[in-house]
Amino acid sequence: MAIIVQKFGGSSIADTEKIMAVAKRIVSTVKEGNKVVAVVSAQGKTTDILIEQARAISKNPPKREMDMLLATGEQVSIALLAMAIDSLEQPVVSLTGAQGGIVTDTHHTKARIRAVDCARIKSELGLWNVVIVAGFQGVSKSNDITTLGRGGSDTTAVAIAAALGAEMCEIYTDVDGVYSADPRKVPNARKLEEVGYGEMLELASLGAGVLQPRAVEVAAGHGVPIHVRSSFSYDKGTMIREVSSVERKISVTGVAADDNCAKITLVGVPSEVNILTLVFSALAKQSINVDMIVQAGTRNSVTDLSFTIARAELDSALETINNIRKDSDWKIVCDENVAKVSIVGAGMMTNPGVAAKMFSALEESNIPVYVVSTSEIKVSCLVPLENYEEAVLVCHKKFELEQ
Amino acid sequence: MAIIVQKFGGSSIADTEKIMAVAKRIVSTVKEGNKVVAVVSAQGKTTDILIEQARAISKNPPKREMDMLLATGEQVSIALLAMAIDSLEQPVVSLTGAQGGIVTDTHHTKARIRAVDCARIKSELGLWNVVIVAGFQGVSKSNDITTLGRGGSDTTAVAIAAALGAEMCEIYTDVDGVYSADPRKVPNARKLEEVGYGEMLELASLGAGVLQPRAVEVAAGHGVPIHVRSSFSYDKGTMIREVSSVERKISVTGVAADDNCAKITLVGVPSEVNILTLVFSALAKQSINVDMIVQAGTRNSVTDLSFTIARAELDSALETINNIRKDSDWKIVCDENVAKVSIVGAGMMTNPGVAAKMFSALEESNIPVYVVSTSEIKVSCLVPLENYEEAVLVCHKKFELEQ
Repeated sequence: MAIIVQKFGGSSIADTEKIMAVAKRIVSTVKEGNKVVAVVSAQGKTTDILIEQARAISKNPPKREMDMLLATGEQVSIALLAMAIDSLEQPVVSLTGAQGGIVTDTHHTKARIRAVDCARIKSELGLWNVVIVAGFQGVSKSNDITTLGRGGSDTTAVAIAAALGAEMCEIYTDVDGVYSADPRKVPNARKLEEVGYGEMLELASLGAGVLQPRAVEVAAGHGVPIHVRSSFSYDKGTMIREVSSVERKISVTGVAADDNCAKITLVGVPSEVNILTLVFSALAKQSINVDMIVQAGTRNSVTDLSFTIARAELDSALETINNIRKDSDWKIVCDENVAKVSIVGAGMMTNPGVAAKMFSALEESNIPVYVVSTSEIKVSCLVPLENYEEAVLVCHKKFELEQ
Repeated sequence: MAIIVQKFGGSSIADTEKIMAVAKRIVSTVKEGNKVVAVVSAQGKTTDILIEQARAISKNPPKREMDMLLATGEQVSIALLAMAIDSLEQPVVSLTGAQGGIVTDTHHTKARIRAVDCARIKSELGLWNVVIVAGFQGVSKSNDITTLGRGGSDTTAVAIAAALGAEMCEIYTDVDGVYSADPRKVPNARKLEEVGYGEMLELASLGAGVLQPRAVEVAAGHGVPIHVRSSFSYDKGTMIREVSSVERKISVTGVAADDNCAKITLVGVPSEVNILTLVFSALAKQSINVDMIVQAGTRNSVTDLSFTIARAELDSALETINNIRKDSDWKIVCDENVAKVSIVGAGMMTNPGVAAKMFSALEESNIPVYVVSTSEIKVSCLVPLENYEEAVLVCHKKFELEQ
């Protein structure tokens, strides 16, 4: 008997009617002869409302207490969904992240899963219960409630699927799969039937938005197949798994965009200062992720260093860097009006014309490129925020992804 | 350094402003040189709203899932209160019932505390943290979240105070102490400075409403002094502790009323049927509490049995008894329009005129008495619901409790 893990986001369970629809889907999966573990997020805007309540009390609430607060959102969801499934006469039990054995580190509000102790889940499945697990949350070794950061429920679902050796992890969302570009921005974007882990990882990191990159990492590491599909239909979506075809013709799979960036540039840093280590270890200590990094060549013994971060972390990043700078001579410049546009595809680096083709597409539309970064399977360009939607469109067209 | 346990009800922390006021009170208690454990309920109407959400999904939601749902109410409270205390620069940590070591039996929605494992609370107090514990909730041996039933936060507070050997358990409420009768009903009711555990237990059970009877039981068993006082002032309230005076002049302490009753009468039960055991063991299995019990003397080999229960449990009690009755000849009669009025006082039974005085007060006002029950320290009369407020007034007057 196969185990299927199904993950439902906050919009899929936003009200009573939607909860009942999800309950019916779970029960029908059971009737098809599967054991089901469902992972759910907080309902609709619950998390935002809780954050607002916290901010009304304190500008800078302790992160441990934020996690204590936010974890209630999924706990409400699992209880209500379990009640809905019970009303369909299907035995069911709900489990918090802690009860589900989601053990994390102690980085409150941004914890990472360290282990999944699925003894309780297994024993409940053994009793023929559907098991509903609260996504996004876990428990640290010191028995404190932690949360995994925005979108962490995807990671919870994949981690449980990996620990249980599940046949499939289904991610239900409000779109019907992964597209060659954001279909809201590119009307003729094409739904992809199948994407490899590596490409999906880039698409996820780069802002395709349907799936958390950490979830894809865990899936790739354990070979868990993911099916991204719509909460509102029974149609097939996009399968994410190891793609085995030796050489594929189309090297570019899709275009992704991330409009949640900010660029920081440190101007005129003396080259004897070990600025890379200084800056990036200080930022890491604050758990601030740095994305694109470019160090301009040294001239006159000074160097310029640019990098991008999530826009929401700009204030704390600037504070961190100011603490390093103290009364040095170099300057800090930042730009919030930037966005990252990327093309993603397997074997891209063996096809050297790809980056050039992207640059030419942008150039033809007079879109400036501030920073470039590349990997085995992607080329990313930082462009002005006001141009990024056009940049996605022209790249999508240039690579003929609509076909 | 003394340990003080402070319990704040849902109305004391209903909004941001009230949460800040509670935080300030806790911090001032710390500044007076105490270690503080605060126990809080869910905010304002939160529990009612959650129950409504559950009812929208299922008429009869599983009790385990109700507990999973309801426990989020206090979890929100403890996180917000901890944030407020942190904003006053007082180190603080919040703990759920499970984290606070509140171990209960498995009677979901009505669990009883079996043990308090306060290792975590002690270690947090050792680190000079204020500890905020979620009231009303605990965890069973099988690691499921349980709740203690309405008003269970009082019991949580007293149980923690007992386990820690706290100097005092302060119960903050919206009235400023325990009165000789409900001050909303009896304008000249008198605030009591001190009440013994036994009398308070009767006053609590009989509907004085300021304190959960289970909390008083636990306090009496462990000798924990309770201070019932107002959330909105710093005035002294009512002390509940072992009263040592050998003989006290005033035998009647107060008048209590409970308008949440229903009476069930089983009419014409053949005397060979072991009806008491049959009925009350079946009701106990459903966790339905039975209060006043009167078995009328047998006549013509049949007997009548009357008893009272909480009105909310009338439907399930009738269902239980119908299952016992099947096609027997005896009948079931019920009356929802009843209320219980009681006079409470130490050493009452050694003063035989007390019950007679109560009956005469009711008789002079033409208030019928359906059922009478007495104990060492109380006399209770079941009266028509429409007369109960008058009954409280006339009893209060008869015993000159305003003086």
